[in-house]
Amino acid sequence: MIRVSIIGATGYVGIELLRILIGHPEVSIAHLTSKTYKGQKIWHVYPCLKNFIDKTCEEMNFEKIVEDSDVVFTALPHGISMGIVHEFLDRGVKVIDMGADFRLKDVTEYETWYKIKHKSPDLIKEAVYGLPELYREEVKQARLVANPGCYPTSVILAAAPLLKAGIVKTDSIIVDSKSGTSGAGRSLRLDLHFSETSESFRAYSIAGSHRHTPEIEQELSLLAEEKLVISFTPHLVPMTRGILSTLYFKLNYQVSTEELTNMYIDFYKREPFVRILKDSLPQTKSVRGSNCCDIAVGVDKRTGRVTVVSAIDNLIKGAAGQAIQNMNLMFGLDEKTGLALPPLYP
Amino acid sequence: MIRVSIIGATGYVGIELLRILIGHPEVSIAHLTSKTYKGQKIWHVYPCLKNFIDKTCEEMNFEKIVEDSDVVFTALPHGISMGIVHEFLDRGVKVIDMGADFRLKDVTEYETWYKIKHKSPDLIKEAVYGLPELYREEVKQARLVANPGCYPTSVILAAAPLLKAGIVKTDSIIVDSKSGTSGAGRSLRLDLHFSETSESFRAYSIAGSHRHTPEIEQELSLLAEEKLVISFTPHLVPMTRGILSTLYFKLNYQVSTEELTNMYIDFYKREPFVRILKDSLPQTKSVRGSNCCDIAVGVDKRTGRVTVVSAIDNLIKGAAGQAIQNMNLMFGLDEKTGLALPPLYP
Amino acid sequence: MIRVSIIGATGYVGIELLRILIGHPEVSIAHLTSKTYKGQKIWHVYPCLKNFIDKTCEEMNFEKIVEDSDVVFTALPHGISMGIVHEFLDRGVKVIDMGADFRLKDVTEYETWYKIKHKSPDLIKEAVYGLPELYREEVKQARLVANPGCYPTSVILAAAPLLKAGIVKTDSIIVDSKSGTSGAGRSLRLDLHFSETSESFRAYSIAGSHRHTPEIEQELSLLAEEKLVISFTPHLVPMTRGILSTLYFKLNYQVSTEELTNMYIDFYKREPFVRILKDSLPQTKSVRGSNCCDIAVGVDKRTGRVTVVSAIDNLIKGAAGQAIQNMNLMFGLDEKTGLALPPLYP
Amino acid sequence: MIRVSIIGATGYVGIELLRILIGHPEVSIAHLTSKTYKGQKIWHVYPCLKNFIDKTCEEMNFEKIVEDSDVVFTALPHGISMGIVHEFLDRGVKVIDMGADFRLKDVTEYETWYKIKHKSPDLIKEAVYGLPELYREEVKQARLVANPGCYPTSVILAAAPLLKAGIVKTDSIIVDSKSGTSGAGRSLRLDLHFSETSESFRAYSIAGSHRHTPEIEQELSLLAEEKLVISFTPHLVPMTRGILSTLYFKLNYQVSTEELTNMYIDFYKREPFVRILKDSLPQTKSVRGSNCCDIAVGVDKRTGRVTVVSAIDNLIKGAAGQAIQNMNLMFGLDEKTGLALPPLYP
Repeated sequence: MIRVSIIGATGYVGIELLRILIGHPEVSIAHLTSKTYKGQKIWHVYPCLKNFIDKTCEEMNFEKIVEDSDVVFTALPHGISMGIVHEFLDRGVKVIDMGADFRLKDVTEYETWYKIKHKSPDLIKEAVYGLPELYREEVKQARLVANPGCYPTSVILAAAPLLKAGIVKTDSIIVDSKSGTSGAGRSLRLDLHFSETSESFRAYSIAGSHRHTPEIEQELSLLAEEKLVISFTPHLVPMTRGILSTLYFKLNYQVSTEELTNMYIDFYKREPFVRILKDSLPQTKSVRGSNCCDIAVGVDKRTGRVTVVSAIDNLIKGAAGQAIQNMNLMFGLDEKTGLALPPLYP
Repeated sequence: MIRVSIIGATGYVGIELLRILIGHPEVSIAHLTSKTYKGQKIWHVYPCLKNFIDKTCEEMNFEKIVEDSDVVFTALPHGISMGIVHEFLDRGVKVIDMGADFRLKDVTEYETWYKIKHKSPDLIKEAVYGLPELYREEVKQARLVANPGCYPTSVILAAAPLLKAGIVKTDSIIVDSKSGTSGAGRSLRLDLHFSETSESFRAYSIAGSHRHTPEIEQELSLLAEEKLVISFTPHLVPMTRGILSTLYFKLNYQVSTEELTNMYIDFYKREPFVRILKDSLPQTKSVRGSNCCDIAVGVDKRTGRVTVVSAIDNLIKGAAGQAIQNMNLMFGLDEKTGLALPPLYP
Repeated sequence: MIRVSIIGATGYVGIELLRILIGHPEVSIAHLTSKTYKGQKIWHVYPCLKNFIDKTCEEMNFEKIVEDSDVVFTALPHGISMGIVHEFLDRGVKVIDMGADFRLKDVTEYETWYKIKHKSPDLIKEAVYGLPELYREEVKQARLVANPGCYPTSVILAAAPLLKAGIVKTDSIIVDSKSGTSGAGRSLRLDLHFSETSESFRAYSIAGSHRHTPEIEQELSLLAEEKLVISFTPHLVPMTRGILSTLYFKLNYQVSTEELTNMYIDFYKREPFVRILKDSLPQTKSVRGSNCCDIAVGVDKRTGRVTVVSAIDNLIKGAAGQAIQNMNLMFGLDEKTGLALPPLYP
Repeated sequence: MIRVSIIGATGYVGIELLRILIGHPEVSIAHLTSKTYKGQKIWHVYPCLKNFIDKTCEEMNFEKIVEDSDVVFTALPHGISMGIVHEFLDRGVKVIDMGADFRLKDVTEYETWYKIKHKSPDLIKEAVYGLPELYREEVKQARLVANPGCYPTSVILAAAPLLKAGIVKTDSIIVDSKSGTSGAGRSLRLDLHFSETSESFRAYSIAGSHRHTPEIEQELSLLAEEKLVISFTPHLVPMTRGILSTLYFKLNYQVSTEELTNMYIDFYKREPFVRILKDSLPQTKSVRGSNCCDIAVGVDKRTGRVTVVSAIDNLIKGAAGQAIQNMNLMFGLDEKTGLALPPLYP
């Protein structure tokens, strides 16, 4: 059994990790930490977990966690992980970081976008960007995995085959993403107050100011083998779970929808969690509760553009599920262990 | 492995059975039948199931189904099951009927409420009402289980301890239930059209005309050991999954909330899926995606009444999950097999 | 023109008053006060109002408000109004209080339920309970109107004809109410966070602990001409606007649905905002955006009970619309002025 | 009083016309036609209208309608209006067509996209595209107005200032639109069934196949004074009302967000229903129930692109409200008559 602790267990990402790990046959839960709820039973904080787990939220205690854990998931606001991850790594505990601290390879980029100084630039180099579809072998060897952001996961998987094949113009990329509210977490905010959010749809950051932009650009640039910038706009959908991203690319030459669809099918043919749709279009409910990413492509001959649509559950393939997929790889398990969860539909 | 077929696999109950059975370690799926979608891949009808199962929907073929199945789940409109169930039973295949045909023990009641003649009154006698919390031993021996309705499950579990204990007036029972839309199935109806349903709440049957009334009354009468009638009002909530029932009873004598709560805890102490809440009240999201039933009670000294609130996922504890719980019992498995699913929250 | 000020203009009730008053042909807005947003344009706080009104939120200034206003609406947390209302009344400004401070005639009841000492017991006596359907003539003469609560409005209108006629047992009354989230206001709370509320339904106070209970009981007792207590349970619906209440009464003698329906039609025949439905049941969306209250009744011969269902928009007939209806009466206008707003459907 | 008839009164557009016209001080309703509901009271079809209007739905009777009407609104499926509009025009009754039959100036385009032969190509020439912000003077003189589509309204208003000014590359335009469900009408469809739509977000037509594409392209081409094509992707949001469109353009030269915002403010400075936002971004709830169109722009220096976001209520500025705005112009009324409706918020 892999002994797992979750640092920051009571946010939506923490609790989703816990929900999936409860059903994971090779895992035992060691410690759950929470600043806010320390001393309380986890099922007191989330009554839905009553009877499923009886752990108590604890204050962070490095000694105990290191002693009892093979791996920790750090689900913390940005800026915190970078100060504590080395404590675990130095003493042989692997780390999967759910936040942004180790995703950007360029320290300057990190410091520009997050407006704080990075405390562990050395670990940035070591950290593996945990998107198994692109970095499977590296993840297997990793001590420290930077688990991708939810938007970036939906975008990178949608763009990878096109960029790898070099058939789109790299200065033409538009990414229009739409997320459910759980991506914004459990902290109270007026714009997430039910009366304000229900029956409303909005963009919440335009013209390139969202912090997932550099993360997406980093990975798309690596795929394209050239430095590129994108236009990225995130929107808020009146639903709890799910991200759908719509990507637009200018084609270098004409190609049919069918050819591109087959190219995608081929690209992802060994991937357990990526599904290429032919006769239908992705919708978030079709992936909700699962680790799947659904993708469809369509070519518009009139404009010479290809549109790619992808859908994920932001808390699973966009966070907790992907992290557990990474954990499975790091510990030599079948990648699907604990993750063969069909979507909850309807 | 138990070989399972689903008759009527493409409704919401059928597909939920399939979703849970896919994760059941002791089950293999034999046949899926569907009049409407015969010849189509099940994941073509429900794209969410792509990669999880590759079966094709078939027309009903008794020979093949009997040959390949140990048990069939019949998820059909009322009036159909009663004509075909004996075909399976006679040839040694167990049946779990998801519909209403075998729930009412009194044939006349059935014929009055459903306005058709019953074709298998003999099987009514044999059928076991599949609420494990009340009929566990009978279910274990059953060839034919009548799986309870969704509203009745939420109501009977909420009322049982009080009626068994004889501490409430049996002519005082009011049941006010609220259901998500999936309980009404996948057939198109104006009142389930998104634009009509969203941001709206309504009662849809008042003054005792809903067909779950006699089913609830039958079971509450058995618990109370006297014939009783109830006032039952179902409402439609603008959400997909979940039933919450609020029950009102006049007490025979004063008793405290704490005493009653402890009585409920004791009554259900061996039940894996019933959770009695002390410090919080049930909400449907806390059971969504799970086989749990959450219950809380409160005594109002001013009125001499007790209020009981219960919540279930109507498609799981109110249908598919309970049916699989019954199947586990009928085949000598641990009752929780395949059902240890924590709720999907948030 | 009636000169109107709103004290506490930036809550949901305040802003709904403002929205309706903007379209009222006999009203001019004098002052809008807000502690939180003083100094800001009201359309900065609520961008939806841009171009419709250009007022700035002000700190409370009695002098100016008294000088410029014929009537003030006080939309404040309980306990505040009772300390300031006399300032207006003493100087000839009428007051419509949106909160609970003047609704309960019995000071002791108020102090028991709200756990604070009442500062203006004398004004309680003078205050008129502003339900025009019951107190129209008194409202016309009033200086101070206590605008009814949202739940009480839906319940009292639904119960009045039965209690006036004396045909139901007064110890049998059960009230099961369901409200959208806007009734809980704009203050942030975890249980109103979109991710927690969407796709969930729950009861939030059982066994008689909600503060609207004594208000309902007061008015039902007056109608029945005897002191009565009720069982009242409020629930939260995943939608923003609307209250639906389901009431249960034991009949003193048998009577048909048709007879009772006609009795209701007769009782409310001169009421512009109460609609008795015959062939359909109330739903909240059918009254959303309007000052209407829809009611239907049904008798269940089996149980000897009558069920009454009523629906209102909690922010309009349950708050701002009713207040403006009261204002119209107080100033001798046609009661419907500014309120002939058909529901926004779908 | 302008005498108005609605042909096809019982769809969502028809009923929204009726709702607004009920409050219009210069209008009397003459006839409401409906194939499906002829002979029924309109408030029987939409109980929300009870007490507000007592008209009966009639079968189409040209004689009577012509005799009693000054203008008719035709709210019909495409292909029907073009066969009947001349009947009204020839006899002096003005027509505002809510459908697509007279929007495309190029008959071939119409026949290609709608796959039927056009019956009144002569009237296409006469018809005025009813977007007052661009064609106010023409609308004033028109006998026949082709009321714009909902998506096109949101897109053209968002794009007009940029294209008029010639500061964006015309081969770079991407339009990513999101609509609530009411835009798809009241006809039942599986993908609009509540259980399928709630908590789900999806694209429903990619790569340029939606029929609003040529309408948008026609108007943007006229603005740019050159033939252009766009990439347009419509999405379905789990809410009833509202469209939000996000547009992306490559700039011809660098310009700041502030400069562009001021350009938009100037462009629309005389428009009563277009609001340019500076400190916030559009959201659909802020325009729901109103005839407003909210717009914000943002320049991303990194990519040399400008993003424009616009929001409307699809049934009002995207249909019925705009049609009434056109009617006001055609009859010499103040354009805002009957339309000064603040948004319903929250």
